Amino acid sequence: MDNQKEYRYLKQLDSPADLRKLRVDELDEVCQELREDILYELSRNPGHLASSLGVVELTVALHYVFQTPYDRLVWDVGHQAYGHKILTGRRDAFCTNRKFKGIRPFPSPAESEYDTFTCGHASNSISVALGMAVAAKKHQENRHIVAVIGDGAMSGGLAFEGLNNVSSTPNDLLIILNDNDMSIDHSVGGMQQYLLGLNTNQTYNKIRNCVSESLYKMGVLNKKRKETIIRFNNSLKSLLSSQQNVFEGMNIRYFGPVDGHNVKELVRTLNDIKHMHGPKLLHIHTTKGKGYVPAEKEATIWHAPGLFDKNTGVRICSPTDGIPPRFQDVFGETLLELAKQNPKIMGVTPAMPTGCSMNIMMKEMPCRVFDVGIAEGHAVTFSGGMAKDGLMPFCNIYSSFAQRAYDNLIHDVAIQRLNMVLCLDRAGIVGEDGPTHHGAFDLAYLRPIPNLTISSPYDEHELRNLMYTAQLPDQGPFVIRYPRGSGTLVDWRQPMKEIKVGTGRKMKDGKDLAILTIGPIGKLAEEAISQVEAERPGVTIAHYDMRFLKPLDGELLNEVGTQFDKIITIENGTVIGGLGSAVLEYMADNGFTPKVRRMGLPDSFVEHGSVPELLHMLGLDTEGIVKQINELL
Amino acid sequence: MDNQKEYRYLKQLDSPADLRKLRVDELDEVCQELREDILYELSRNPGHLASSLGVVELTVALHYVFQTPYDRLVWDVGHQAYGHKILTGRRDAFCTNRKFKGIRPFPSPAESEYDTFTCGHASNSISVALGMAVAAKKHQENRHIVAVIGDGAMSGGLAFEGLNNVSSTPNDLLIILNDNDMSIDHSVGGMQQYLLGLNTNQTYNKIRNCVSESLYKMGVLNKKRKETIIRFNNSLKSLLSSQQNVFEGMNIRYFGPVDGHNVKELVRTLNDIKHMHGPKLLHIHTTKGKGYVPAEKEATIWHAPGLFDKNTGVRICSPTDGIPPRFQDVFGETLLELAKQNPKIMGVTPAMPTGCSMNIMMKEMPCRVFDVGIAEGHAVTFSGGMAKDGLMPFCNIYSSFAQRAYDNLIHDVAIQRLNMVLCLDRAGIVGEDGPTHHGAFDLAYLRPIPNLTISSPYDEHELRNLMYTAQLPDQGPFVIRYPRGSGTLVDWRQPMKEIKVGTGRKMKDGKDLAILTIGPIGKLAEEAISQVEAERPGVTIAHYDMRFLKPLDGELLNEVGTQFDKIITIENGTVIGGLGSAVLEYMADNGFTPKVRRMGLPDSFVEHGSVPELLHMLGLDTEGIVKQINELL
Repeated sequence: MDNQKEYRYLKQLDSPADLRKLRVDELDEVCQELREDILYELSRNPGHLASSLGVVELTVALHYVFQTPYDRLVWDVGHQAYGHKILTGRRDAFCTNRKFKGIRPFPSPAESEYDTFTCGHASNSISVALGMAVAAKKHQENRHIVAVIGDGAMSGGLAFEGLNNVSSTPNDLLIILNDNDMSIDHSVGGMQQYLLGLNTNQTYNKIRNCVSESLYKMGVLNKKRKETIIRFNNSLKSLLSSQQNVFEGMNIRYFGPVDGHNVKELVRTLNDIKHMHGPKLLHIHTTKGKGYVPAEKEATIWHAPGLFDKNTGVRICSPTDGIPPRFQDVFGETLLELAKQNPKIMGVTPAMPTGCSMNIMMKEMPCRVFDVGIAEGHAVTFSGGMAKDGLMPFCNIYSSFAQRAYDNLIHDVAIQRLNMVLCLDRAGIVGEDGPTHHGAFDLAYLRPIPNLTISSPYDEHELRNLMYTAQLPDQGPFVIRYPRGSGTLVDWRQPMKEIKVGTGRKMKDGKDLAILTIGPIGKLAEEAISQVEAERPGVTIAHYDMRFLKPLDGELLNEVGTQFDKIITIENGTVIGGLGSAVLEYMADNGFTPKVRRMGLPDSFVEHGSVPELLHMLGLDTEGIVKQINELL
Repeated sequence: MDNQKEYRYLKQLDSPADLRKLRVDELDEVCQELREDILYELSRNPGHLASSLGVVELTVALHYVFQTPYDRLVWDVGHQAYGHKILTGRRDAFCTNRKFKGIRPFPSPAESEYDTFTCGHASNSISVALGMAVAAKKHQENRHIVAVIGDGAMSGGLAFEGLNNVSSTPNDLLIILNDNDMSIDHSVGGMQQYLLGLNTNQTYNKIRNCVSESLYKMGVLNKKRKETIIRFNNSLKSLLSSQQNVFEGMNIRYFGPVDGHNVKELVRTLNDIKHMHGPKLLHIHTTKGKGYVPAEKEATIWHAPGLFDKNTGVRICSPTDGIPPRFQDVFGETLLELAKQNPKIMGVTPAMPTGCSMNIMMKEMPCRVFDVGIAEGHAVTFSGGMAKDGLMPFCNIYSSFAQRAYDNLIHDVAIQRLNMVLCLDRAGIVGEDGPTHHGAFDLAYLRPIPNLTISSPYDEHELRNLMYTAQLPDQGPFVIRYPRGSGTLVDWRQPMKEIKVGTGRKMKDGKDLAILTIGPIGKLAEEAISQVEAERPGVTIAHYDMRFLKPLDGELLNEVGTQFDKIITIENGTVIGGLGSAVLEYMADNGFTPKVRRMGLPDSFVEHGSVPELLHMLGLDTEGIVKQINELL
């Protein structure tokens, strides 16, 4: 941490209490140092850059004005909370950010009392803060509760449900709407257009200044009546611009928009409104990547840029020639390829066009791809509506976020057995993003849903074949789940062919043990089998790639049940209720009684770290599989 | 159907095409007959009365103005669709409404081409309609798409996600906001207050009339420019009342409010706006239970009143003396009892205070119960916020609706292992409400979630004991699921005692077979065992009430695994991934290899009917259990 020695302020700030000892006019320099430190750390240890740079001033102002941790600061999505972490006693530890056993990727109450709530999934902050406000009232604690929510997260239904309840439950909540016109990609939807409108009415801004200056001179307005002024401004604005203020419409006082990079103005405004009663919303404008030109220019790329040279702004990318592509890119390229052949195919993504590589199709066929905002439930129901009237939507959602569309999949898709494809990216262990982002539960929560086909490809060819199969007529709802990261094949763009639904494949014969896998984790089983067979001459192990969790391949399982009395199942998902359980159920239902050892993710939330580190810790790497084979043999 | 002979119009209306042959001035009488018919049928065959009475005029107007089924009519929650069913070819069959093998409880595409989409869960109509609008455009079909959504359903996040996307995707959608200030209970939240405000500005109404009359005379406005007029009205309204129109704020044209019981005005307005381009919302006011005085007075009770005497308005209730209470009432009474002892207890319900009997606590402790609107996700996250700061929320959600809070339970509660109680009412087969409402999946989808305790009581005493146990300190998130309807005990109000978490009970010894059950379905197993033992002297069957699905009672299962080689598991939930699978997993993990037969709901959506009819059909009644025992013995 040699560079910290140069910091005048930051090195003294061991907690927000230290920050609050400074004068307001010193905060600009604190912000500068904090920004510098985030850049320095992130250039050496990859993480979420642009959103944290965007809220430097807000973070400093909030900890300066509010008595954290007594006052509650609820972040909505923790990407942006690096400054918060550095200011709340984790400055020196921050170099371990996102590393195995290091500082967690998002705020976590298990890590710090300043981290008030889990915030890996967007849009929960208002509901959480309202709950805390009720608790404070019940305990007669006079604390402030502040939720910080981005305009992207504001498109989620949960945020609206929270707002709707906030406006009818007595509380003094302060909601900070951090408006940077972005989630990871650009924000979309009516709310975003609305917010944009709130800022661009020049006439209004001019008139406001004239009118309020006059009123000041006349003594009608004065500094003591700041609240009146701000309310007056809102009414004036509505009158002059005919803009309808959604928040005022819901009985939430609206203030703003103010410049989110002016720390003194933020401090002043927060002090002005913090003691006002009733729910209120402060709308601030920030720039994602603020203060670092490359990130300001291309905030999507600099959302999580990987390693980079701080001085030149050049990202340090590994060469990709001869390297297998990421599964998401195979998805994106193949989707475009299929969409060219099948005019019914439409793309739907909840705010992740870049993350799932649907931007490839979006670029070429903008009218056939819908980015619906951070709204996973709507993404699936909207797809259901399209499917009902004859289109073939491919909806792509990260596995852990798809948990938000569970009812939509059951109620709006499966009951009617609609033809749509749900691609779950980031399934299984995702690595550094940790417990909120691991796609641990999908196989288990999807399996009980009737009418669903659930599949996972062994490699890129299989992904393409499954996508091809899924869009053939009358397949019903078809799930394809695949992990984050790269596959194994360089020559992935092979002709596609239909796979018979519900069929697995025997990858290798054997006599002593059968290993049943689903998805790319089968590659690790393949390696483990080679290793064991090399070490123990005479031992042979069979390997089956199940490919479909549902419907199960009964023929294949009958073969396994008949020929083997020892089975290992392996899946990159929870060990409860997924492939292992499905195999146990099949065996029980069909009169087989083999020994079955189920390998998968444990019945606990898995922390962050690199994928290999985590798989090793969980005994799900080659070494762990070898160990289980040897134990069972 | 003798009473239909008296109808002048209704008897001729075999489809909406017949309706469209009538003159506008005949529609009043059609409405009267339709209302009469709904009342007649519902008085003899129970169903959802009040909401269907409320939309009689709307239903007639919609089918009159739009070319259904070519034009798409998407109902949001099908309670209200009885008039729609009667007008769309199901008049004679309507006497079988909700009966086993009869007309379905909600619109269902499997039943009629006029039923465009599944609509058992609230708030999906806008998303669905938008999907259909995209499909129509892609297929170059020039059809109208109309979504009908209530103000209650408008509080759901999915509706907002839909609106947000509607306003940024090119479409000509018509959204009818049916505002009756009700869901099943009274509506709550900011949106509801906002809608109320839109109607009550008297000044505005007066001025509007004056101004528009003047402008007519001046020739500025004329009938050809109706669109302009209505837009003008909205702007005027905003200017005069400072009311902020949420929908206009989101680029959705707002029209209304208009009287939803004036069929001619509805027809006129719909004709006026149907060809306008871009998304639009028509706000209508209706009265739930309209035209039937008892239902107008007490719409919550008359939401689904059971049998009643049409002429006197007296509901025909069975005597309740000496009858066991409903599980929901035991929950409601016990919650109040516990809340009196434990000041940390708070109640949270998503729009179901009457349905789950939380109204008992609400009445006595209004400040400690929150009806958050139709917003299951928020209900759970809001509870999480309260729990994080030391309160003990009891959140009660119907099992099938809790599917909407799946991510909230994982992300906002389980990861932090917060102390809250989630009570799932209507778990398992619910009867007449059918596939959208059966609580079939909860055991299976909850089991993979780490940190969760999952329980189900055998009877009312156990329900009370589980509730008592759940609110003791540091229990973590605690789920208690129980079915719709009554238990078996009259003396249910016994002193409560702690149950050791993760322990089941041996109900009965036996040697030939062990039956493992969870929840009140254990009573049927008890009966079946008695029957088999009576029929087959010498045979003895053990029975264990597992009580907890998670954590499982290992000691008990070791006993079972050691002593029995034949096991039957029985649960009122899907046979995939629930208790049966948990037992299989345990046995496999611990080296036991008994024959296990799993009984539960099948891997298909179960249609409607009475609970006994459905359990019989599924082989889950006493007879079915006896059969399985005899097969396995």
